[in-house]
Formats: sequence, C-alpha cells, structure tokens
Amino acid sequence: MNIAAIYHRPESEYAYLYSKDTMRIRLQTAKEDVKSAALISGDHYLFNEKWYLNRENMGKGLSTAHHDYWEIEVSSEFNRLSYAFYVEDFDGNAYFYCDQGIFPYEEEFMQQDSSYFRMPYFHEIDRFKAPEWVHETVWYQIFPERFSNGDTSNDPDGTLPWGSKKPDREDFFGGDLQGIIDKLDYLVELGINGLYLCPIFTSPSNHKYDTVDYLEIDPHFGDKALFKELVNKAHEKGIRVMLDAVFNHLGASSDQWQDVIQKGSQSQYAQWFHIHSFPVHYDPVPNSEFGENINYDTFSFVPNMPKLNTANPEVQEYLLSIASYWIKEFDIDGWRLDVANEVDHHFWKKFHDRVLAEKADLYILGEIWHSSQAWLQGDEFHAVMNYAFTDSIKAFFLDSEVTATNMLDGMNHQQVLYRDQTNEVNFNLLDSHDTPRMLTLCDGNKAVLKSAFAFMFLQKGTPCIYYGTEIGLAGGMDPDCRRCMPWEDQDQELLAFFQQLIRFRKNYADVLSFGQLRWLSKKDRVITFQRSYLGKTLRCSFNESGVAQPIKKKGVPLFIQNAAEEKDYILEPHGFIVELV
Amino acid sequence: MNIAAIYHRPESEYAYLYSKDTMRIRLQTAKEDVKSAALISGDHYLFNEKWYLNRENMGKGLSTAHHDYWEIEVSSEFNRLSYAFYVEDFDGNAYFYCDQGIFPYEEEFMQQDSSYFRMPYFHEIDRFKAPEWVHETVWYQIFPERFSNGDTSNDPDGTLPWGSKKPDREDFFGGDLQGIIDKLDYLVELGINGLYLCPIFTSPSNHKYDTVDYLEIDPHFGDKALFKELVNKAHEKGIRVMLDAVFNHLGASSDQWQDVIQKGSQSQYAQWFHIHSFPVHYDPVPNSEFGENINYDTFSFVPNMPKLNTANPEVQEYLLSIASYWIKEFDIDGWRLDVANEVDHHFWKKFHDRVLAEKADLYILGEIWHSSQAWLQGDEFHAVMNYAFTDSIKAFFLDSEVTATNMLDGMNHQQVLYRDQTNEVNFNLLDSHDTPRMLTLCDGNKAVLKSAFAFMFLQKGTPCIYYGTEIGLAGGMDPDCRRCMPWEDQDQELLAFFQQLIRFRKNYADVLSFGQLRWLSKKDRVITFQRSYLGKTLRCSFNESGVAQPIKKKGVPLFIQNAAEEKDYILEPHGFIVELV
Repeated sequence: MNIAAIYHRPESEYAYLYSKDTMRIRLQTAKEDVKSAALISGDHYLFNEKWYLNRENMGKGLSTAHHDYWEIEVSSEFNRLSYAFYVEDFDGNAYFYCDQGIFPYEEEFMQQDSSYFRMPYFHEIDRFKAPEWVHETVWYQIFPERFSNGDTSNDPDGTLPWGSKKPDREDFFGGDLQGIIDKLDYLVELGINGLYLCPIFTSPSNHKYDTVDYLEIDPHFGDKALFKELVNKAHEKGIRVMLDAVFNHLGASSDQWQDVIQKGSQSQYAQWFHIHSFPVHYDPVPNSEFGENINYDTFSFVPNMPKLNTANPEVQEYLLSIASYWIKEFDIDGWRLDVANEVDHHFWKKFHDRVLAEKADLYILGEIWHSSQAWLQGDEFHAVMNYAFTDSIKAFFLDSEVTATNMLDGMNHQQVLYRDQTNEVNFNLLDSHDTPRMLTLCDGNKAVLKSAFAFMFLQKGTPCIYYGTEIGLAGGMDPDCRRCMPWEDQDQELLAFFQQLIRFRKNYADVLSFGQLRWLSKKDRVITFQRSYLGKTLRCSFNESGVAQPIKKKGVPLFIQNAAEEKDYILEPHGFIVELV
Repeated sequence: MNIAAIYHRPESEYAYLYSKDTMRIRLQTAKEDVKSAALISGDHYLFNEKWYLNRENMGKGLSTAHHDYWEIEVSSEFNRLSYAFYVEDFDGNAYFYCDQGIFPYEEEFMQQDSSYFRMPYFHEIDRFKAPEWVHETVWYQIFPERFSNGDTSNDPDGTLPWGSKKPDREDFFGGDLQGIIDKLDYLVELGINGLYLCPIFTSPSNHKYDTVDYLEIDPHFGDKALFKELVNKAHEKGIRVMLDAVFNHLGASSDQWQDVIQKGSQSQYAQWFHIHSFPVHYDPVPNSEFGENINYDTFSFVPNMPKLNTANPEVQEYLLSIASYWIKEFDIDGWRLDVANEVDHHFWKKFHDRVLAEKADLYILGEIWHSSQAWLQGDEFHAVMNYAFTDSIKAFFLDSEVTATNMLDGMNHQQVLYRDQTNEVNFNLLDSHDTPRMLTLCDGNKAVLKSAFAFMFLQKGTPCIYYGTEIGLAGGMDPDCRRCMPWEDQDQELLAFFQQLIRFRKNYADVLSFGQLRWLSKKDRVITFQRSYLGKTLRCSFNESGVAQPIKKKGVPLFIQNAAEEKDYILEPHGFIVELV
C-alpha cells in the first residue's frame, strides 16, 4: 500500500460538522491503491468499552488524478468523537491510521487512547453554515454600464450611442440602474432569481472598481432612491441582489488619497494605506494603467488603486460600516468581495461577524481564483468565484484533446479542498467581465455553449450567467467582454434554451445542490453520470466525441438537446440528455 | 516518483509568514523518494517576466517514518508571492507541482499564471506572533495544594500533616500561596524563570479544576493581596507567572449551577450550559466522580463539572472579563487553558484578541493532547501542552526496544504539524499533575531521568519541570503524582544537575529556541545531533545503548554526565555530552 499518500487533517474539510449533529469525514489514499477503508470511532471518555474493535465502512467518493477520497457521515450521542481509520490494501494487509501515524491494524496500537484523531465537541457556533436560499438560486451578473440605458439624462459626457462600437477601455455607453429596473420583467421571464451587480458606487471609470465614495451610488447610474426601488422591485419578483465591494484598494480620486497627495505624512489618512515614503509618487508607464517606482502598495502595479491598510482599526471601521450600511438601509442579500485574497484574514473574520449580525442569511462571496481553503473555514466566506472549477469544464468542452478524465480530475481536485457546504453554494460561472465570453470561446458554436452550460448547471454549486450570454452576445478578453447588451437583435432560440435550463435547475434544486454524484462512464468524451438525492435520481449524458452516439433509454426525459429519440436516444455531437430515473 | 505522497497546503504550517518580510515554505514528499526540490516563485503581476523559469533549491528538513519535508525561506519585494515546486526524482524525472496538481516540468504547464499557489499579500496582522520572552523561559509547574504550606491558619478542616501519606483523591495537606512566596528563593536558586500554577480560584477540591468563583483566590490558598505579593515578588526576581483557567466547565457548587438546580428552566443561567431537559439530574456511579443518565453535557461523564455554553454571549463576556481581570489587576504573564480542545474556536479567537489587547506579550497555552493545528493558526493559542512530542522522548528513554528512529519519527511528526513559531515556544514536559512522575517511570534510575530531561531541554520548545522532579520526588498516576514536596530530605545531587541544566538552557536559549536541528547519527540507540544558530553550534551525544560508547572529541565540553574523558569521551550507559563546536 502507498502509505505515504494517506492523508487526513482533523478540523478541516477532511473532518467537519455538516449538520448540527452529523460530522463528515474524508480520507485521502493513493488512487486505486486501497481495497476498503473504514472508520473506527467512539467516545474518548468511554474508551474502556473497547469501541475501537468495531468499524464502519467508508464509501469511495471523489477521485482525482492521483488520489481517492473516502467518505463517511457519522453522529455521536455525546457530541464528541475520537476516530481513526482502518485501511486495507488489495493484498489483505490492514493498517491503523491515526493521529500518531500509521501502524499495523493490531490491538496493541489501537488501545492507546492518545492515538486517535479528535472532534473534541460538536460546536454549532463553529459549524460552516451557508445561506439556504443560495441552493435554489440561479445568478445573473450585470456590468451596469453595459446592460441597459434607462435614463439618458444621467449619461456621462461623451456617452456613445448604445452598442455603436466594441468597447474600448475608456468608453461610456450610459447603462444605469433605471435600465436594470426597466428590464426586471425580462429577468423574470429568463427565470433567474439572483442578481449580481458589478460595482455601482461613485467612481470615475466605467467598471467602477476604483471606488471614490462607497456611500454613494455613481450619479451616472442613478441615486439611492433608485437603488432602493431596484432592490424592492427585485425582491417583489423573488430576485435577490448582491453588490460588489472593492475593499482591497481605493480609487485615487477619493478624498482620502487626494488628502494624502496634498498633505503627505501629515494627512489624517497617511496610515490608511501602505506608504513607504512621502510624498507619494510613481512614474507612469505610457499608454497603460500601470506605473513604475511606485512608493506605496497598490493593486497590481496600478498607481490609481492604492491598497488600503485593513489592519488599521479606522479603515476597518470605515469599511465595515459601509458593509453594514447597504444591508441595513437597502436590504441587499449578498456581498461579492473584489480581490478578496489580498485583504487580510483578520479583517474578513470581522466582516463575516458584522454583516451576518446585520442579516443572518447574507451570502458572502470572495473573488479568489486559486485554492481558497484558508478563506472557507466557516468564519470568512461562504464561497468563491469558482474559476478553477469551471476552467476544467471549459477545457473539456472547448478542446477536443481534453479527456473527460482530465475534466473530472480537475473538478474533483477543487471540490476536495472544501467542505460540502461550500461546494453546494460555490459560485460557478463560465464567463464574466474578467474573461472572454463563452460564445467567442466556442467560436460561435451554440451547441457547445449549450452543452457546457447544461453540464455546469448539473454540478454542485450555484450557477451564474453573465448578462447577454443567454441571447448570443459575443466578446473577447476585457474590455471586449463588456459589450452593450443588445435589446433588439437577440438570439431567441438561445434565450429559450436558457429559460428551460434555468427552470430545470430551479425545479431540481435539491438534487443539484445536495445530490451525490456518481460517474457511470466517461470514455472517448462520451460521459454519463448521475445525481441522486432522497430517492430522486437524474441521469445525464453528454456527447463530446464528435460523432453520434446511442444512449440507452433509462427513464423520463427531462431535457434533451441535439438528440433523436429512436429505440435508444441518438446523441448528435454536442448533444445531451437528462432523464429522471 | 511517489506523486501521490506530495503535499502542500497554502496559508498553513506549510506556507506562512515567519517574520514580517519572510515566508517559510514546506513541501512533503515520500521518504527518500526525491532527489531534490526547488521553489519556483515570483510576483503574479510580473508574470510576463517569466520568473517561473528560475528556481531556488529547498533544503531537506525534518523526516518522519514515511515522509521527507523540504524547506525554504523567501522574501518578496512587493510583499506577495506566487509559487510552485520543482521536484526531481532519482531517475532524473522532473515535475512541476502547483495549485492545480502535478505536471511534467515543462513550460507549457508552468506558463499558466492561474496554476500557482499564492501568498496574496504579506499581512503582518495575520502573522503568527509568539511572545519573545518564552524563548528564554524555563518553567516550573506547581500544584499549589502540595508545594508548601506557608500559612497553617488557612488550612482546610481535616488537613493532614505535610507529607504524612501518599495522597488519596480527597486529601488536603495545606499547601498555599504563602508557601510559594516563602520558596521563591529556592526557585531562584534552581534557576527557573516561569511559574505555572495549577488553578488557584475558589473551588471545593484539592486540584481546583471545578471552579466555583473565578474572581476569588481560594481561601485555603490565600487572598488577592497575597497573590499580588506573589506576582510582584516573582517579577522582581525575573520570574513570570502563568495561571490555569478552566473555561470548559464550571464546578457544580458555583452559584450559577446551584441556581439551575433550584430554578430549572427559569434560572437566569439556564442558557449558560448545555442542558437537554429540566430538572437537571444524573445517577451517581458509586465510589467515583462519574455519573450515568446525565441530562446535561459535562466534562467527561463528571456530573459535578457541567460544561459551559461558550456560544452564549453572556458566558463569553463573563469568561473574557475574568481573563482580562487577572491580567489587568495582577499583571499575570500567561494563561494555561484547561481542556482547551473542548471549547469552541469562536470563543478562543475572542479570547486571543481580548487578552492580547490587555497585555501584548501574554503567553496563551492550550491543554491539548492530540494534533492541534486548528488552534495554532495564529489567532487562538501560541502553544499547547506538548504531550505527544514528549511521549516520543519518554518512549525512547524508558523502553530499550524503542529505536532512535522511532523517537525521531514521532517528534518530527508533531513538529511538521506546526509553524516554527509554535515549535519554538511549544510547552515541553515529561511529567505533570496528569501523568506519572518521571522518577517512577524510570524505576528510580536517575541517570535515565537526567538524560531524558537533558535531551528534552536540547529540543525546540520551552521546557517545564514539574515541582519535585528536580529533587527526586516519585509518584504514580494521579493522585499519586501530586505528593507533598519534601523540603528536608531532598536529593541534592539531582537538584545540582537540574540547576546546571537550567543554567545551560538559559545560556544557550537562542540556539536551543531557534537553532536548526541536524542528526548526525542515531544507530543502536547512540545518538548524535547538532543545534546551530548564527554561527554557534551545539553537538550533543546520548548513549542509550546499554554499553559504554566512545565519542570523539569535537569541541569545548559544556555539559557532561556519566562520561569519562580519555583520548575520546567514553559515554557510560545513560551518559551524554554537549559540546560547543
């Protein structure tokens, strides 16, 4: 057996409270190296009852390129658990894996009560709790400057005619909050029930990631009364609203940074940033947003985005009061946190406590592109922008060289980093304001786009559609992915597909949020898997092989694309079928 | 190469800020499986500079039974780091291990900027910081009822004559704070500079782990004025004082629990505990402290120790105000936290912030016997009672069947769970009020006892001596390990040894706290290792082989026990030598 590959970490995503009374426990072993694994567990204070002589089989859960993950759910009469693992290889050798290492499966080693891993007490207050409503939510991301211009009177000087060109970095087209309100019925018809708005606070740019005043709506977007109307109307229609907070850095036009520029070390805001010497300065890099020889910390090397010192209690209080304000006064439902990984954990823990005290079921979503265990322990975020996960999906659907196994390894590699509670509400997306649009990545092949989105909607996590993707909007890398939403020439066929997909996701929200995933086949880019929950099972097949494939009928068809129904189904290339079995 | 055994976890003991500007990074590989490992790192926002084509060799650090751990210390100009690993096996195959998995070491894989692990920003506020003074501290643990009776007027009824018998569970012998004050000069002569007192707050028992009033000194021990005198006098003599806080449970005689017994669900303290139904009850187990059918949560199954509900804000505030009070009013230097693992993390994070706000260099020590990563992330404890670590040492010195490799595997297994900051201040001990005494475990063989203590003192961590061990006090399992300190018939030879050992530990505190450990040989229970720091190197040899062993002279002898000096040294069985080389 590959002993060196065995891994477990107490009080982490490998051992955590799932519900108030149940713990979920994972064990890593080398891939296809272990015949069976079992849990040995009991109450530490009843050790003389020799409970360690009993064991409970673990199930084989997710697998990655090099590992298998074994899983079990257990409860405990006295709310505490000592545990270790029984691991048996294919030659019949049995091992005892415990807190002190790995030993032969013999009573001599098992009868040391100090050898066991521990969950010392089931503390509900430490349990990772995600907002329930997110499980049933399908998100729609809006870049407000480009969604709809509902009020031309507030357009910035030099606003271009709507959709008159592909956007350049500095363009304005006049999109605003009135535009979003005007189109709420469109969103209702689409079926989404969560709205994620890119920043709407005062800022000189079209993207508004360089905030100048966190307490004001950008005047080109509207005002607070209008935003209140937007939230209220959205809520009436069953749509939640999430705002985007940029707490890593401030815009250079802000009063605070301007004060630093003017007063240097004498500024009352001198300690709000990470300034190495005064006066602050940088050398511009021509034709770019970047600078050189910057004597203060910034986002990337962008001098107009000075990094905030979130270790300063004044800054903490300033940002936390902003986070509270928009919840208390406007009843928003979520905060999406920009560049969340570059802000300190100490701050995010305070943020977590403060915003949840204001609204207990607020959704906290961090923008992190890499592995995010450190932020997802239950006291910072509920979820992250799950780019790493969906990159695996994109790779498979966009590149015919990528195998289903590659995709699965990548997806599972991400999922075993997190507790199930996170995976169930993790923010899944295929495109956004920071990536090329899917239609462009698919070279206009709508069948591929549909399959990729359907596949993503069938995974754990809360799915998001980037405005326009549902009606055939194309666009390359930023800023091209931020084109104006066309309101006349929309792809109705694609829209109908997304309406159906969203309706389906909402109808089967329980299975798709909580259901166990089981892979039935994944050979030659023809994949079949099941999602099952409380007796309901969805069987899903996708054909990315490039040639038509027969798929046996198994149940009631719920969703079919590019398939013919004969004795079996015939899945055309990029076709898929979902059945209730 | 054993790819499945490779492991790294960003923002954990595998990747952390050690100083303000330096990060330490670890990598796990299978034992003796990898020829070399190197770090690939750079600034994510300068990815176009192709820094990923350069690499920096990692050193081979600690090893366990199945793994090697590679280490490196790095800094970063812009306070942020993207990184991955180069790993080369003995066949010359090279791999790129990154956030997305493990791939061939080829530019195709390395040029994906999203593949890298990240330390997104070097946040000083998130850095694990241990109190400096602990590095230079040698502790002395006192069980106050048994150390010295300085004031017979406060003795409990039925107090037995000092040392008149081996202690039974309910005995009182009259030890008190005046006794400790009277013996401060003894402690100064011994050389210790940290005093860890088992609980001193009001409680009916002799051990006082069932607190009745956290705001009063137990009247049989003295009063607040006397405790203030003790702390002040200790401080004058350069001795820090750590108290023991029992926050997991309350004593049943407390006002709060008595109120619950009387008023049931109407008690204002009904929510202070974990009560399943009212009235509270249990069935006593005859001749024991245990109960059955207890309808509330307790420590173990001890009905007289009802578990506190530390998720209740009232309880939190009550306990936190106690923690502050003894710092503010009496200037104590540390809190040792009893049964710390069974109290919630949420509470300990508040505790951490509150007590350090009161005294920035307070030492927070948790009683946890098992792996403690979850409490040692920098926002809860500085250290734990390091029983697991020292069990490995005891096993080697007490059992001639145990090899040096066994010991080393066990010690290293513990050390790689923690950041170096923790290992440097972890609380090392060989006996305590909860274990048999070392002299008894050694069957009275003082040479073994001396070697084991000397070896422990030569390891990373802050060492502790349990009162009496230094003068030959014996005792089996609790309560026998809590005998009265003899003040007349003391083993002066042993005392002189401990005086020398403590003096040595304090003289070489820098090397022994921070110095790198290198094993030179460990065959047949004859071990030689070095500790090195800033050009100073201690070379240490121990002979547990059972027969005399020659050891070559290498430098200036600092500390010799059971050894003859000839051309070489001849180490007798249980002899050791420490040289400055």
